[in-house]
Amino acid sequence: MDSRRAESFSDGVFAVAITVLVFNLLPIGSHLPLTMKLLGSYWPSYFAYAVSFLTIGIMWINHHTMLAQITRVDRPLLMLNLLLLLGIVALPFPTALVAGHLTAKPAGGQLAVVVYGLDMIFISMAFGSTWLWVAAHADSLGGSSRLRPRTLSTLRFTAGNLGYVAGTLIAAFVSAVAGLVIFGLLGVYYAFEHLPSPAPGVADEGEDSPA
Amino acid sequence: MDSRRAESFSDGVFAVAITVLVFNLLPIGSHLPLTMKLLGSYWPSYFAYAVSFLTIGIMWINHHTMLAQITRVDRPLLMLNLLLLLGIVALPFPTALVAGHLTAKPAGGQLAVVVYGLDMIFISMAFGSTWLWVAAHADSLGGSSRLRPRTLSTLRFTAGNLGYVAGTLIAAFVSAVAGLVIFGLLGVYYAFEHLPSPAPGVADEGEDSPA
Amino acid sequence: MDSRRAESFSDGVFAVAITVLVFNLLPIGSHLPLTMKLLGSYWPSYFAYAVSFLTIGIMWINHHTMLAQITRVDRPLLMLNLLLLLGIVALPFPTALVAGHLTAKPAGGQLAVVVYGLDMIFISMAFGSTWLWVAAHADSLGGSSRLRPRTLSTLRFTAGNLGYVAGTLIAAFVSAVAGLVIFGLLGVYYAFEHLPSPAPGVADEGEDSPA
Amino acid sequence: MDSRRAESFSDGVFAVAITVLVFNLLPIGSHLPLTMKLLGSYWPSYFAYAVSFLTIGIMWINHHTMLAQITRVDRPLLMLNLLLLLGIVALPFPTALVAGHLTAKPAGGQLAVVVYGLDMIFISMAFGSTWLWVAAHADSLGGSSRLRPRTLSTLRFTAGNLGYVAGTLIAAFVSAVAGLVIFGLLGVYYAFEHLPSPAPGVADEGEDSPA
Repeated sequence: MDSRRAESFSDGVFAVAITVLVFNLLPIGSHLPLTMKLLGSYWPSYFAYAVSFLTIGIMWINHHTMLAQITRVDRPLLMLNLLLLLGIVALPFPTALVAGHLTAKPAGGQLAVVVYGLDMIFISMAFGSTWLWVAAHADSLGGSSRLRPRTLSTLRFTAGNLGYVAGTLIAAFVSAVAGLVIFGLLGVYYAFEHLPSPAPGVADEGEDSPA
Repeated sequence: MDSRRAESFSDGVFAVAITVLVFNLLPIGSHLPLTMKLLGSYWPSYFAYAVSFLTIGIMWINHHTMLAQITRVDRPLLMLNLLLLLGIVALPFPTALVAGHLTAKPAGGQLAVVVYGLDMIFISMAFGSTWLWVAAHADSLGGSSRLRPRTLSTLRFTAGNLGYVAGTLIAAFVSAVAGLVIFGLLGVYYAFEHLPSPAPGVADEGEDSPA
Repeated sequence: MDSRRAESFSDGVFAVAITVLVFNLLPIGSHLPLTMKLLGSYWPSYFAYAVSFLTIGIMWINHHTMLAQITRVDRPLLMLNLLLLLGIVALPFPTALVAGHLTAKPAGGQLAVVVYGLDMIFISMAFGSTWLWVAAHADSLGGSSRLRPRTLSTLRFTAGNLGYVAGTLIAAFVSAVAGLVIFGLLGVYYAFEHLPSPAPGVADEGEDSPA
Repeated sequence: MDSRRAESFSDGVFAVAITVLVFNLLPIGSHLPLTMKLLGSYWPSYFAYAVSFLTIGIMWINHHTMLAQITRVDRPLLMLNLLLLLGIVALPFPTALVAGHLTAKPAGGQLAVVVYGLDMIFISMAFGSTWLWVAAHADSLGGSSRLRPRTLSTLRFTAGNLGYVAGTLIAAFVSAVAGLVIFGLLGVYYAFEHLPSPAPGVADEGEDSPA
């Protein structure tokens, strides 16, 4: 199977999941007189929206970078990709938990950020597994043979994932806000390139070929 | 008509339908203090989310496999595909019924899983009809002539469909949870390839051509 | 501009609008014990869902057929297409009105179907205008010159549109259900081909060219 | 990276964001007898829907025009594009504020339109930055060298952006409705072409190449 339609479906899921985040904002101020104080009191919703938007957006860019390196997908890759999407699609749920509970009423901010962190750990494990599959089967997936020895970038990628574990532990035992800030910073961290770019040969091929 | 835009539209519908499933999770814990006990009490929602996500995801992969075998679509195929999508788009509805009623308050878990099963039967009948149309008109749809004699795979496919009838009957007369577990297992069953892969000639053509 | 990305955006809007229809079903039975009587009492929701799904789906197929005849879009065509999408995206609103008011509690079924009909008239006028623009500028949009003399099909298309006016009037003065049934039948009517298919030359070109 | 998948993801986000606007209409009249008076009392919702739909739609057309001029995207462009989408996806939130507060019950119409205006300013700044990046790196992004000297169109584009600042100030100090009308007029203003069209050479290339 060529990788084009897997990209198209994934793009759709990423696009919908990132847009669904706005539903955390929609109930704000619908039944009360609208004041700056009321709007301001919803800062956890805006914060959670921004962190989740950044996370899904960066995740999409890296997903893009990953699939650009191959021209075919196989069944196990589709299944791993589906697991990744399962975690992405669920993200509006912990985002809503964080938006509703980060401040004290009703209580539970730390638990909310822990659930958020568990979803992020699930996502980053699924992303890592998908990436390892791509790297290990570069030949049969039409990728460049230069993909395999990139252990350094794989290491850096794994290091980033450990950050989600750290953020979750900090949310559980120290502070919900601190944990969420760490997740935001990890989004910024991943905004810089940590996956190898497509090898020049593949890129050229990508331009000559219809994909 | 070439099959590309039918794929793109179907991908969009699958992507939105799979993402809409998260709305079953969003109301969780919004007005109560967040505790692990509260989160745990919503296990039917997570279970229903996972089964429906898996089902739609696998359905998409098989839809992908099916349309990859042809290069054109005709009007009856578009109509059958629309019926399939009608069932897919409706799936968040029985998922919400299951999420809200699998445990006893308010009652109705068995009826909820029966409605779920009826939608699955509708979907699998629509999928089967679409597949039979593709197989029967492979020539005029630009598919490989090697598609037609695959009676074995068609049989296996039909056998899987009977599983949805069995799960529905078990939900109606025995146990709601047992019925839902069967639907989850059928998702896993379909994760393994039961449609013939595109014949090599078609795949090569697909790669040389710009599509 | 080439017509590909206009198709991709339109496909996305159609796909989301058709999926959003499920939100009319989601609140069903969420706070009451689930019984067949309760499920049955929501028949206007299922009916409205089916009519709107069919309408948007058929509209998408005809949109597909229309844009398949050209290879470029210009600014006025994009604006007309945007008006068409404005009407499509709004359709879940009258669908919800119909679902909530077709039976007597709370009253207003006839008004609900009239609003539904007004949106359908808006949609069919926008579709007709888009189609006339495509037919009138076939040359500059890269379409076949065989597009223009198809006055017969244009007439049949317009005749169908008058059906929406008739259905709206019947809903206003006779019966809400009768009006809605007419809209469903018009969906079935449009399921049969009333736009000229792409001329063979265009179709062949479409296959050789990367589009 | 080639620009195709960035377009596909952006199209998806635009398509979902524009469709999500309908959720502002869905709660209308669900618990009360449906009368023309009731429907009419919701005019701020229809008004806000129309302005936001027009704005996102025109924004999409201009986004289309912008990306059609290049064939590759780089990482900074993807990040700027993500910021633009952040603002677009958030738009249903101020739209809901306007729909709920433009008339006096509950109060806050001016604040609602100010929040709307702030989002529009954010969006137009992100769009302007994205456009400047495209114009400045036309060579490395595979665009035409004729892109750069278009200072006139850049000026006109910037002038339009100042309109959003003016509308926000008018909403803050004079009238909420006047501010919203200005945003609607700006949508109409942008409906006319203010970005340079792709140079003929690029357009031809785009047609010969598989993209």
